[in-house]
Amino acid sequence: MSLLDFFRLSKPKTAEIAKERLQILVAHQRVERNRPSYLPQLQQELLEVVRKYVNVDQEAISVKFEQDDNQETLELNIVLPEFQSETEEVKDEQVNI
Amino acid sequence: MSLLDFFRLSKPKTAEIAKERLQILVAHQRVERNRPSYLPQLQQELLEVVRKYVNVDQEAISVKFEQDDNQETLELNIVLPEFQSETEEVKDEQVNI
Repeated sequence: MSLLDFFRLSKPKTAEIAKERLQILVAHQRVERNRPSYLPQLQQELLEVVRKYVNVDQEAISVKFEQDDNQETLELNIVLPEFQSETEEVKDEQVNI
Repeated sequence: MSLLDFFRLSKPKTAEIAKERLQILVAHQRVERNRPSYLPQLQQELLEVVRKYVNVDQEAISVKFEQDDNQETLELNIVLPEFQSETEEVKDEQVNI
């Protein structure tokens, strides 16, 4: 089973479908354990990139970071604002100009 | 089972352990299907961010993009250069200075 299959199997339940979600997972399989991890800093930059595309608040983002001997994983779960509210924001900006 | 569990279960086989790998997965659960997808462009920006941390060639990156009615998934698999060769590069730079 590939990871893409896993995403397919883990579709939201009906009650959750109303919200758009963006999920980002980063897994780093490490050979050299003594090097400092760059995943926490990478996480910040990933969020900056995501914010270029969607307007997300800090509280809409949940982060998990785990590490064991040879693997580190970073999981970002982001609840996206609804489409309607985004269009309203665009309208507001046009009025301000 | 969480996605982090899946990463734990899908550890590399012994023969593959010698290589460092970075895997990035992005899943977008969409409510509004008519909006254009930003994942292909996001993919480019994610790779630019990763390249700040690790020196990866284009051929070391494999990309899968899949979409169905309410979900899009992007999977980036990156084989990282070995630690030793990176340190050698740093030494070379120091000699040049």
